[in-house]
Amino acid sequence: MGSIVIAPRGKSEQYSDPDHKLVNGETNKQKVSKMSSSSRLTTEEELVLKRFRVLIADLCQQFKGGHPGGAMGMAAIGVALWKYVMRYAPHTPNWINRDRFVLSNGHTCLFQYSFLHLTGYRAMTFEQLKSYHSDRVDALCPGHPEIEHEGIEVTTGPLGQGIANAVGLAMASKHLAAKFNRPGFDVVSDHVWCMVGDACLQEGVGLEAISFAGHMRLNNLTVIYDNNQITCDGAVSLTNTEDINAKMRACGWNVIEISDGCWDVGGIVEALKASRDSPLPTFVNCHTVIGVDTAVAGDAVAHGAAFGPETVASLKRLYGFDPEQHYVIPDAVRDFFRDIPSRGQSWVSEWNQLLQRYANAHPGLAAEYVQRMEGNLPAEWESLIPHEFPAKATPTRAASGLVFNPVAEKVDQFIVGTADLSPSVYMSWKNKEDFEPPYLGTGSYTGRFVHYGVREHAMAAISNGLAAYHPGMFIPVTSSFFMFYLYAAPAVRMGSLQHLQVIHAATHDSIGMGEDGPTHQPIELAALYRTMPNFLFIRPGDSEETAGAWIEAIKARHMSSLISTSRHALPQLTGLTNRTQVAKGAYVLEEVTERADLTLIGAGAELNLAVNVAIELRKSHGLKVRTVSFPCQRLFDAQSREYQRQVLQRQSGVPIVAIEAYAANGWERYANAAVCMSKQRFGKSLPGPKAYEFFGFDVPSMVGRIKGYLESLKSDPDLRHDFVELTFVGKEK
Amino acid sequence: MGSIVIAPRGKSEQYSDPDHKLVNGETNKQKVSKMSSSSRLTTEEELVLKRFRVLIADLCQQFKGGHPGGAMGMAAIGVALWKYVMRYAPHTPNWINRDRFVLSNGHTCLFQYSFLHLTGYRAMTFEQLKSYHSDRVDALCPGHPEIEHEGIEVTTGPLGQGIANAVGLAMASKHLAAKFNRPGFDVVSDHVWCMVGDACLQEGVGLEAISFAGHMRLNNLTVIYDNNQITCDGAVSLTNTEDINAKMRACGWNVIEISDGCWDVGGIVEALKASRDSPLPTFVNCHTVIGVDTAVAGDAVAHGAAFGPETVASLKRLYGFDPEQHYVIPDAVRDFFRDIPSRGQSWVSEWNQLLQRYANAHPGLAAEYVQRMEGNLPAEWESLIPHEFPAKATPTRAASGLVFNPVAEKVDQFIVGTADLSPSVYMSWKNKEDFEPPYLGTGSYTGRFVHYGVREHAMAAISNGLAAYHPGMFIPVTSSFFMFYLYAAPAVRMGSLQHLQVIHAATHDSIGMGEDGPTHQPIELAALYRTMPNFLFIRPGDSEETAGAWIEAIKARHMSSLISTSRHALPQLTGLTNRTQVAKGAYVLEEVTERADLTLIGAGAELNLAVNVAIELRKSHGLKVRTVSFPCQRLFDAQSREYQRQVLQRQSGVPIVAIEAYAANGWERYANAAVCMSKQRFGKSLPGPKAYEFFGFDVPSMVGRIKGYLESLKSDPDLRHDFVELTFVGKEK
Repeated sequence: MGSIVIAPRGKSEQYSDPDHKLVNGETNKQKVSKMSSSSRLTTEEELVLKRFRVLIADLCQQFKGGHPGGAMGMAAIGVALWKYVMRYAPHTPNWINRDRFVLSNGHTCLFQYSFLHLTGYRAMTFEQLKSYHSDRVDALCPGHPEIEHEGIEVTTGPLGQGIANAVGLAMASKHLAAKFNRPGFDVVSDHVWCMVGDACLQEGVGLEAISFAGHMRLNNLTVIYDNNQITCDGAVSLTNTEDINAKMRACGWNVIEISDGCWDVGGIVEALKASRDSPLPTFVNCHTVIGVDTAVAGDAVAHGAAFGPETVASLKRLYGFDPEQHYVIPDAVRDFFRDIPSRGQSWVSEWNQLLQRYANAHPGLAAEYVQRMEGNLPAEWESLIPHEFPAKATPTRAASGLVFNPVAEKVDQFIVGTADLSPSVYMSWKNKEDFEPPYLGTGSYTGRFVHYGVREHAMAAISNGLAAYHPGMFIPVTSSFFMFYLYAAPAVRMGSLQHLQVIHAATHDSIGMGEDGPTHQPIELAALYRTMPNFLFIRPGDSEETAGAWIEAIKARHMSSLISTSRHALPQLTGLTNRTQVAKGAYVLEEVTERADLTLIGAGAELNLAVNVAIELRKSHGLKVRTVSFPCQRLFDAQSREYQRQVLQRQSGVPIVAIEAYAANGWERYANAAVCMSKQRFGKSLPGPKAYEFFGFDVPSMVGRIKGYLESLKSDPDLRHDFVELTFVGKEK
Repeated sequence: MGSIVIAPRGKSEQYSDPDHKLVNGETNKQKVSKMSSSSRLTTEEELVLKRFRVLIADLCQQFKGGHPGGAMGMAAIGVALWKYVMRYAPHTPNWINRDRFVLSNGHTCLFQYSFLHLTGYRAMTFEQLKSYHSDRVDALCPGHPEIEHEGIEVTTGPLGQGIANAVGLAMASKHLAAKFNRPGFDVVSDHVWCMVGDACLQEGVGLEAISFAGHMRLNNLTVIYDNNQITCDGAVSLTNTEDINAKMRACGWNVIEISDGCWDVGGIVEALKASRDSPLPTFVNCHTVIGVDTAVAGDAVAHGAAFGPETVASLKRLYGFDPEQHYVIPDAVRDFFRDIPSRGQSWVSEWNQLLQRYANAHPGLAAEYVQRMEGNLPAEWESLIPHEFPAKATPTRAASGLVFNPVAEKVDQFIVGTADLSPSVYMSWKNKEDFEPPYLGTGSYTGRFVHYGVREHAMAAISNGLAAYHPGMFIPVTSSFFMFYLYAAPAVRMGSLQHLQVIHAATHDSIGMGEDGPTHQPIELAALYRTMPNFLFIRPGDSEETAGAWIEAIKARHMSSLISTSRHALPQLTGLTNRTQVAKGAYVLEEVTERADLTLIGAGAELNLAVNVAIELRKSHGLKVRTVSFPCQRLFDAQSREYQRQVLQRQSGVPIVAIEAYAANGWERYANAAVCMSKQRFGKSLPGPKAYEFFGFDVPSMVGRIKGYLESLKSDPDLRHDFVELTFVGKEK
């Protein structure tokens, strides 16, 4: 497919800097833009663009900070989107069939904030708009867009996340359309528009998402590239000289090029409208000039700092405005956008009528759609989880499948995927349908199982987009080896930050995963996820606790979770473990009646080791040993101090030892010592049981070290104030 | 540049499975390969390929595990590389001018292990080769290749890392060649060969590295794509239908296609040799069949499990071998590789002679080259670090520049880069030269400052490759905002795991970074890096401690480090802080003579807050307060217990409160309570001082909470056993 090039772009030598280096064969000097004679632009539009740019410059100058240049360069794109192309309703901002807009280059947030203000979003008052970079604590204009605020679909900022979120939003819409639309009843018809800068096209997560979206033929997605060829370091040609159009086409995208992105409103509108009819996702490569028409146009300094009062004044003079006046939005500009709220309300009411007709024609589907919109899970979901498990030792990854697949099969909110580990993660249910572009013949858009490919980071970021489509409408589930959630971590974090419910099913935790070796054995990763705010990291110890883990993750409608499971079989601790207790984070497995000698904490794949060590310490050493199962630190921390003391009994002075085949970090809060991994090394490639043994996670070795620790406590009473790591490293030779 | 297609590939219906789905328009059925009439292959080569494949099948069958299919499909590529193309010396495995081979699809490690054995690497005995997936603790055949073992350049396994490492190796060589080669004296002439599978081309880090390598025109790099169109989930067409050749060309790569990658040894040799002469990096797209010639050929089950005895026997029968015989390497196969060690020694000795002539012709350069090879830093490096700093409050990121840039300028080992944050990270020294392809006119390959683009993950992974080129020859330094080291984390981990010295200069730590808001404010990230094994995470509190941090990071020749610095100005704690004390991880800033009421710990950007809180508690409340600076937990943990007790005095029962604007996790080991961030939320977009205030990191608020805590300790003595978080969340409205 050839690229369409719309309109030659204007060139001017105004404000040129002859020293600038080559940018894709042009000098920045040449890149300084003015209106080209071929640009299609009305007088009103011209005024709007100029006023918009001056407003951005003023707003950044106000508190001497922020990112003005990109927002100014993108003004014409914004006019095309908000005035002519996007279907949305400022006075019904959460209208479910609205087009979604994602600002992946989130640092240009003033661009979005200003259009939200101009198009009549009620929360975005002029006073609020002026709060950008202020110290106002209830500002709606933070340094990057935040999902909590009206008109913002997802929180963006870390580069590359937004484009992946947009892919998730487009998937959500594609799926709902395939499921609910019927001939004559396109109740789901929203389109996703995503702005990206040069950086989003360099970040790996963005590249993964682009490849995935092309494969999935998400033609309800248009990505608009603010191609200003400037990043913080200077010209993009310092770091990137690829042929982006060819690359996008190779990834299965439709490409349209706009040569005068600063002024050619008509051309941009034409391109964006054309993208709605493409059979492929569309990439609109829009050449712009950062800080257009200022003294720093086309220069990296226009990116992340206010211009200074003189440069702002010069811009105003160039445009024929009074340099002494600030934050001016003349009536003509207001008039330009005045019809937008009522236009939006008309669309909403047309759609409401469509929904009504749809309800008459397809009452069952309509009821289902409305139920999904309300975000509630069917009441019976928890009853779908089995109450019995095989008596034999079972890997908790397999237990995850036993627990969750019956729920996933019946509850349509769940959209489940894997980063190419289907055979390992046990997440596929009977007769599942794959989410695939129909032409491939391997699935369809009604499918709820997603093959994300070997793209862990995009998987998590796309899942955030799915979850953000409409509150509670989707609960995305991702799956991979636990270790690869380090690849996905930036997106997992963004899910937590946005209070999005995404459940990450992470298998092959612990060194017990074996032969794949240290590159695949997570030693330090639990510390990250146990620390992440607003997040549940749950490590169940057997099948019963795996049921509890899923119940907690599903009940947490405004949090992301990670359920960490074992590759290897774990004994069923029947009569000890209890799914309902998982909600408390930790609970006593075995109590003693007299004063105890020791409390042993176990977690996840190592819980059974704690139980076995306790048996041995009782049997061979006559010790009174309590055991505590500790699947989730965050849930335990949320319990009353009274409950916490009852479980741990730290105040009694009875020593507490945690057993986990990870770095000890995190257990200091609950224990005096830990049987753990050394902080000098990662794991080792050995069969699982041998890996445990190599690092001293066999019962005799643990018993020896714990006994030694108890002895040391007697000889050195001050030791009870120190946290002690009881590590063991086998000899390599 | 058009792609060269070498030889049509063979097709056969043998072992076909008619149910397989479409793969790039072919069925897997068609993909099952046999020798094509046009494949160029000698009788000896044919025997070697067949024996090699059977050997791989046997080795996986031995312990019923491992990854046989890929290694078998790649056999002809291996013969081309090790027999005909690569310049290396098995008996001088660390010959510095050897070609480097990186197995980015590390799970196919048996491929590499087997060729190491066949070509005469002494450590890889036949007995060792048979240790794959055994429980032998000194095995040289772990589940993924490990740098510690002879013949392995980098540890691979997490997909996409290897290709980025290969880019780093190619950069290292390119840089050394540009710096040291002279006409007639190509002392640095090694080439980098990297195998990738389908997955490495999906992972974001791989895509970042590809884009970067194309930009940098690293024509000493050849990436060979084992294009078997199978991953764990099944056909690659489930997840990826892009035109990879077009994508690679768009990224600035030369592309050569091999249609019969299973058998066309001659064609592969021709392609690989041609790649040496390309002006661009070369991508050899080699079509192969996973598990070729077995009953599971072209099927995902051939990927990650032994075939079963019957399938292995069938393969042997097909090839005319005795199915009862296992692990057979006949003399004819041994003979095929027999000359390789001596050939390698000839190359080594020719090169030694070249080096000798070079030393005569260019004695200064030769001496410098040899010194670099020895890996030692010039003795005076530490003296280059200033002993005085500006008296005014200075951001530690600026201090980083003051401390390190004089060293970077003078010490050629350092190759310093940034992920597009040059203006923010203060890492560029006067008159630095950029590492750039000369044709751009903005630098050259002798440059030591690298613009990595907005590619944090690749930056860290490429840096690992630079560090792995030759021990101590390069110390790569990366830089970005601290938050984006979550993007880079998988590669940072791989550096630690491999004991590679890479220094990560992370700026904009703490909520004090301000307006960019919660997406950019690291709350939980320190917990990850403090927990990572074999790694130094250092948070200096002022300029003086920043000097100490760099000294420790530079001295740690076998560890990776991260130095975490502030965006905002921090007062110089002159007379309190001390660079030499940073080596101890923590040290007493202010001692009291009588029994103390409280010990306050401060770290990094919040150290000055701890000092100010102590002043206020002394002044207004008459408390005797000790203060401790705690820049590095890992270094403190390495001190004697005696020193640790002397600093913290936990045994005295004096309460210890840590102050850090992060999640408290990690401080439980050293303190009883922490003034910290809540575990319910991330940061907030506000000017830095306002963000501190919003979360209660102003002196009055902290004093109030700490006083309250001390009161609670009196009323509830058991509280001293609990770890207490003294959090504060300002009201949004």
